Amino acid sequence: MFFARILTLILTVSVFQTAFSENAKAQTASAPMTMPELLAATKPTDWRAIDPDHTLYMELSTGRVVIELSPLFAPRHVANIEKLVRAHWYDGLAVTRVQDNFVAQWGDPLNSHPEVGEKRLPAEFSRPAANSSFVRLKDVDTYASEVGFVNGLPAARNSSDGEEWLIHCYAMVGVGRDTDPSTAIGTELYTVIGHAPRQLDRNIAVVGRVIAGIELLSALPRGTGESGFYEQPEQRMPIQSVRLASELPASERVPLEVLRTDTPVFQKLIELRRNRRDTWYKKPAGHIDVCSVPLPVRERPDHKR
Amino acid sequence: MFFARILTLILTVSVFQTAFSENAKAQTASAPMTMPELLAATKPTDWRAIDPDHTLYMELSTGRVVIELSPLFAPRHVANIEKLVRAHWYDGLAVTRVQDNFVAQWGDPLNSHPEVGEKRLPAEFSRPAANSSFVRLKDVDTYASEVGFVNGLPAARNSSDGEEWLIHCYAMVGVGRDTDPSTAIGTELYTVIGHAPRQLDRNIAVVGRVIAGIELLSALPRGTGESGFYEQPEQRMPIQSVRLASELPASERVPLEVLRTDTPVFQKLIELRRNRRDTWYKKPAGHIDVCSVPLPVRERPDHKR
Repeated sequence: MFFARILTLILTVSVFQTAFSENAKAQTASAPMTMPELLAATKPTDWRAIDPDHTLYMELSTGRVVIELSPLFAPRHVANIEKLVRAHWYDGLAVTRVQDNFVAQWGDPLNSHPEVGEKRLPAEFSRPAANSSFVRLKDVDTYASEVGFVNGLPAARNSSDGEEWLIHCYAMVGVGRDTDPSTAIGTELYTVIGHAPRQLDRNIAVVGRVIAGIELLSALPRGTGESGFYEQPEQRMPIQSVRLASELPASERVPLEVLRTDTPVFQKLIELRRNRRDTWYKKPAGHIDVCSVPLPVRERPDHKR
Repeated sequence: MFFARILTLILTVSVFQTAFSENAKAQTASAPMTMPELLAATKPTDWRAIDPDHTLYMELSTGRVVIELSPLFAPRHVANIEKLVRAHWYDGLAVTRVQDNFVAQWGDPLNSHPEVGEKRLPAEFSRPAANSSFVRLKDVDTYASEVGFVNGLPAARNSSDGEEWLIHCYAMVGVGRDTDPSTAIGTELYTVIGHAPRQLDRNIAVVGRVIAGIELLSALPRGTGESGFYEQPEQRMPIQSVRLASELPASERVPLEVLRTDTPVFQKLIELRRNRRDTWYKKPAGHIDVCSVPLPVRERPDHKR
């Protein structure tokens, strides 16, 4: 069941660029014209393995959601989330909120406070841009003077203040908080399930990305309470467990890889998507939004099931 | 059931701007600080009634999806869709495709051709910008030299070629087609359920917007076939009927209004959302993406149920 879902995700990623109608077929040509052709031509070194010490498996009755945590931007928040995971604190909690075109959020419906970990944390909404391996996207952006990618995640920076931050694109994961930023310790997490809510950027700690199983969250019924909270406890989707991949025996892990964003092949991918040349498209856009750049995920090709 | 859903939608719109955490409360001040405060202070003339001759009610077993058609940009496509509706051609068809972070699409799974209406239609992907009532958004856009709103819908134009077109924001409705643009006659329709797929702009006829019940489409299970098509017929969500609002007796209609986009109050709304001043936000964005500007919908206030 789970493997089927992972495969589905990977398939979805790989066909995402196929023509909008099922009847349209890509042109055949020597140079890659489509994302699957380009990905098929990648080298093993174009991909980066996901670190099992920073990978969460959130088990729902419907399957597994895989989240890659990135300690680069919010290291203390990520460390505390991993501490809560190791203590099995999330087990038995639930998805409590699904607001259409916004977020799915999970945590403790009773708002209890964990015995382990931090009680408060300083805000980690951005970091100094200096010396980061920021790969810039040439396209202009509404919100920031520069957008691009840092180690596989969408990021932005402002030349004026030297700040750099992760962007709330679809499937990005952040740390819910109350009005006081220090209340964000990881007891409430959310992922984006709609148009990128960029107004949240630099207002919240962004800690990673859902790299498999996002549809297990994005297709949940929307909550009918304020801000999409479920009004009845039985409407919530229970969380069976959350584990670090490294906590599980190898046989229960799926070795996922993400396409590296600091490579020539990633630049080719961006250009393929900026100007779609498959026959369905009559007017290539000529531009691409940072949140429309695909971040491909695959199972390691030599993995035996 | 249906009225409850409509109310839910309106409630969702009105609370959309509330702080991200349920614990945060908006400040009280004399000038409106939040969208609900602003909307509460509107005059009746700030709203525009939806034309029942251009409003579709798509009935699913889970409720009603309401679509406002706009003949401004794709008049022949809209006219043909309305012809198909009057012939009850959509009754008994189904939602055939739901692709995560992209579109939900409906039509005839058997790909039959209607007896009524057009067999082919010329492309209506854009129109000349001259003399339109385009209300410009001052923020820069990745894809177009100008973005803004035309009669309540997000639109873009390029100063270089004088073209104007509707934007694929969340909940916008377009006409599916094969590689040949003339195959788009309205037998396949879709709505956006993810981050705005702007690469579709100017490649397809955009005909309107889902103004109520989008969650009945966006929360459907994702299809596991290529491009999100359902692999098994029983996975499809059947369409019970599609009617023009004007075909129904008044008692079965819901008189919806949309906030006009050519008014000072709409400009105030944009500014409220560009720089959020409720206490939850620590760093107002200072900018807003055209697809992040809310397009509020309400039931006519004097409507008796």
